[in-house]
Amino acid sequence: MQTKLWPSLLPWRKDYHKSDIPADGLAAVIVTILLIPQSLAYAMLAGLPPQMGLYASILPLLAYALFGSSRVLAVGPVAIISLLTASTISQYSGNEAIQAAMMLAALSGGMLFTMGVLKLGWLASLLSQAVMTGFIIGSALLIALSQLKHILAIPFSGHNLPEMFSSFLQHQYAFNDLTLWVGLGSLILLILSRRFGSALLKQLGLSEKTSNLLGKAGPIVAVVVAILVVRFFKLDTMGLSIVADIPGGLPALQLPTTHWQMAQDLLPAAFMISLIGFVESVSVAQSLAAKRRQRIEPDQEFLGLGAANVAAACSGGYPVTGGFARSVVSFDAGAVSPMTGIFTAIGISITCLFLTPLFYYLPHATLAATIIVAVSSLLEWHALRDTWRFSKIDFIALLTTLLLVLLQGVEAGIFAGVGISLALHLWKTSRPHIAEVGLMPGTQHFRNKDRHNVICSGAVLSARVDESLYFANIRYLEDKLYAEAISREGIEHVVLMCSAINSIDYSALEGLESLNLRLKHAGIQFHLSEVKGPVMDQLKRSRFLEDLSGQVFLSQYQAFNQLCNELDATLTPRI
Amino acid sequence: MQTKLWPSLLPWRKDYHKSDIPADGLAAVIVTILLIPQSLAYAMLAGLPPQMGLYASILPLLAYALFGSSRVLAVGPVAIISLLTASTISQYSGNEAIQAAMMLAALSGGMLFTMGVLKLGWLASLLSQAVMTGFIIGSALLIALSQLKHILAIPFSGHNLPEMFSSFLQHQYAFNDLTLWVGLGSLILLILSRRFGSALLKQLGLSEKTSNLLGKAGPIVAVVVAILVVRFFKLDTMGLSIVADIPGGLPALQLPTTHWQMAQDLLPAAFMISLIGFVESVSVAQSLAAKRRQRIEPDQEFLGLGAANVAAACSGGYPVTGGFARSVVSFDAGAVSPMTGIFTAIGISITCLFLTPLFYYLPHATLAATIIVAVSSLLEWHALRDTWRFSKIDFIALLTTLLLVLLQGVEAGIFAGVGISLALHLWKTSRPHIAEVGLMPGTQHFRNKDRHNVICSGAVLSARVDESLYFANIRYLEDKLYAEAISREGIEHVVLMCSAINSIDYSALEGLESLNLRLKHAGIQFHLSEVKGPVMDQLKRSRFLEDLSGQVFLSQYQAFNQLCNELDATLTPRI
Repeated sequence: MQTKLWPSLLPWRKDYHKSDIPADGLAAVIVTILLIPQSLAYAMLAGLPPQMGLYASILPLLAYALFGSSRVLAVGPVAIISLLTASTISQYSGNEAIQAAMMLAALSGGMLFTMGVLKLGWLASLLSQAVMTGFIIGSALLIALSQLKHILAIPFSGHNLPEMFSSFLQHQYAFNDLTLWVGLGSLILLILSRRFGSALLKQLGLSEKTSNLLGKAGPIVAVVVAILVVRFFKLDTMGLSIVADIPGGLPALQLPTTHWQMAQDLLPAAFMISLIGFVESVSVAQSLAAKRRQRIEPDQEFLGLGAANVAAACSGGYPVTGGFARSVVSFDAGAVSPMTGIFTAIGISITCLFLTPLFYYLPHATLAATIIVAVSSLLEWHALRDTWRFSKIDFIALLTTLLLVLLQGVEAGIFAGVGISLALHLWKTSRPHIAEVGLMPGTQHFRNKDRHNVICSGAVLSARVDESLYFANIRYLEDKLYAEAISREGIEHVVLMCSAINSIDYSALEGLESLNLRLKHAGIQFHLSEVKGPVMDQLKRSRFLEDLSGQVFLSQYQAFNQLCNELDATLTPRI
Repeated sequence: MQTKLWPSLLPWRKDYHKSDIPADGLAAVIVTILLIPQSLAYAMLAGLPPQMGLYASILPLLAYALFGSSRVLAVGPVAIISLLTASTISQYSGNEAIQAAMMLAALSGGMLFTMGVLKLGWLASLLSQAVMTGFIIGSALLIALSQLKHILAIPFSGHNLPEMFSSFLQHQYAFNDLTLWVGLGSLILLILSRRFGSALLKQLGLSEKTSNLLGKAGPIVAVVVAILVVRFFKLDTMGLSIVADIPGGLPALQLPTTHWQMAQDLLPAAFMISLIGFVESVSVAQSLAAKRRQRIEPDQEFLGLGAANVAAACSGGYPVTGGFARSVVSFDAGAVSPMTGIFTAIGISITCLFLTPLFYYLPHATLAATIIVAVSSLLEWHALRDTWRFSKIDFIALLTTLLLVLLQGVEAGIFAGVGISLALHLWKTSRPHIAEVGLMPGTQHFRNKDRHNVICSGAVLSARVDESLYFANIRYLEDKLYAEAISREGIEHVVLMCSAINSIDYSALEGLESLNLRLKHAGIQFHLSEVKGPVMDQLKRSRFLEDLSGQVFLSQYQAFNQLCNELDATLTPRI
């Protein structure tokens, strides 16, 4: 892998040709059409004014094009990050909430930059697949439920199921028929267009590719239909909640406020947003890059996403990352480079400048419906079954994360999920596989005595451990070996076969020293065999080899042979 | 190892004989003499009234004798746990601080019990050797420095070096000559008796064993001398701070208060006190047990220590654990069973009932001196050098913990230490060793191509990973292999040799699926070889084997042979 001190600017520019412009331009038009309703909707989900969603779809796209390594990743506001933003800034209100959202983007951008420069990509591995799955399913459910308030016109709220439910019970009499019909109508239109849209277009004689692409334009169709219906029937005068005035014009460039207390309060959330945004974005980018035998560089991705978030913070936006749906659309539409992002940014700018009045009559219920349909694709229930069948431990991590997200909220869920993953991993590795080994008759090989018919000695206990030794598993090994050695009559030598030990840490060294001492007090010699070169080098830098009551043998066979001969013990075959 | 649903009561009673009573009785007398000044001193260190130290040395000893598995562990107040208690209860004052200390013992006892019943002993492995070493050295320094206030008679305070220093600067003019001389005198007496005590007694004709034992009675000698001097010269009337009235009589039995808010605030500290107390106690108990070819059961230890702490909570004490110095003394004095603890409890009870007036004139400066001398043995500076030489990663964990304890306080230090250990461990294991392997000419073995002169194919990339695959390392493997495969011209097959993979988790499964898909898009087939039985069983429970673009080969040789033959490629030897 390339290692560079400083990242490239416009890493894709070298192999860009003018002839690529039409393809990128066409893709940009399609992405822009998809991005307009998404930007408005996700801003609503984040609890922010609609124009912030549009602002988050201009400069961040340019910034990502400057630094990012993926050719087709489409960045902008996404559902999960919008939910995290909503949950984080809910402690503020009014203008302070807007400041907090921008600050969150700034902090997240700074963190992503830092992680990129310090090559901290491995931090993303904290989020195991099981935790991410539980988190995404739980978040998608929370998002869908939270949007019901716009469809039922019942202003319930909350960060988790219990809060939403009790809030719902307080407000349930404020039900509104009209809103419900508009919401349900939008939902049905979206679901139908998603299900049958492209098939219908194909029957109308369009090419398969065009049909598939246009089939994804459901949200903009629903938005246009809803706007026309509301305007024609003057539904806004009958109590339907609409978007109304969106301030026109481009976002003002500004630095985020320097409110240190707020920055400090937002740090943990910014860290989580950075990591989750990174993981989401990289997995989308990698799977698309693979289709064209390209690859993305995770460290460069940090910089691209970091720059995008800093740009969002400086232009009235909120945290952004690479979105799955829009990246796939961009890819399918034939985008070949981040130039698509630059063109899309121009498209959204034009929307901000001239088209915002068109969205005046857009009902909130329709936006809510687009969000619900969008996140429904995140509900990968089959992942629960797959995980259950594959690994019970991973399933526990998944389910705990999912339940905690639903019952406590997104932040508690993700933090607890990471903690549980780590704890379960430690628990699993804290009990390494230890096998008592014996000599395979007629060979020089030693095998697990429980699985093979091997020769053991009553005075020499030979054990093999199938894991590197470190702080989490050394106590278990020490205790097991000691207990086994003193529980048998006549044991005079313990040989630890180290063929599977790739490294030992300081705790393991202390554990081996302690085991050596304890065995010595019990009158038993402790030996090692088949120690790998690097481990031997490590041991030589300590006092362990001087203190060792026994020897270090090159091979287990040599150890067994020599010790048994010394003892002049008869080799008694065991099962 | 035995596995029982419920622990034994008096686990040592079966092989106890009446003839052991004299030995245990003698050891108890010696331990009692050591324990009196220690109990008074550590209560002072914890910021509690002196009698609480004595109370913590009565019922807890009986409770441990009932449940504990070590024959000679002497429980009671210890330095590090007293410091942790002091740091935790400093947010309260007066009677509330006393309640908090008892609550801390109750919580800690409950947690230890729970960990024992749920067999959570592996949690103690969170505290790696490096973190414990850094923590103990840092704590010992803080303890020694904090006690200087009693010797200099300057009432500075603080939980860390900066706090102590700034507090010192505020108070430095309150210096008191008399206290300083008493403190220095006690220190010198203690150091001399520790250094030359037993040698002197030996020269006076006592047996070596008796001399060694009596040589450890320095603290009580210093206490007696100090009391006599203060009384004779009436130093207390000249401004010397003395212990004065210690309420006589046995502790009142009572349940800890049910102050839920306080309990919640104390939980994290109680968790740390439980774990650290457990780790300390078990390592002392194990090393002593080994000398008599006995062993202790960690799960039973949890119950013993848990019971001891609950007993402390119910009888006006504070958190206790097994102490190193007093256990060694007890062992050397010939204690053979926890009966020593029962006798010691009787000894301390007699002290409480009748002897407390004797300690009226005991100067605080002398107690401070005994603490300083006691913790000085914890300053194992050589461990820093050993760790540095053995492993730089462990050294970073040690140093960070040490510095954070000194600069931020004990709790921040230990929590950060655990976090850093985990992070460094993840970082280390997130980059598993991946070797490109080739065929050893004339054999069927495959070896690292960088180390051996092996045969490789230009179309088949064979790689071996030396670690089980899980969430922290799968991304690295996926990225490395993919990058390597597409960076070379002509690669048509990638074979992952799985001989060192003992298990894979759900994240690893997803990673392998993603790698398979990415390689497939790039026109490269992905194969596995030498998959272990349990891993194969796991894979069969997923869709991976159906989706796999290539095959699973029994051996790497078979894979290489078959793929090369299919390709009809010439085997070109490489270095």
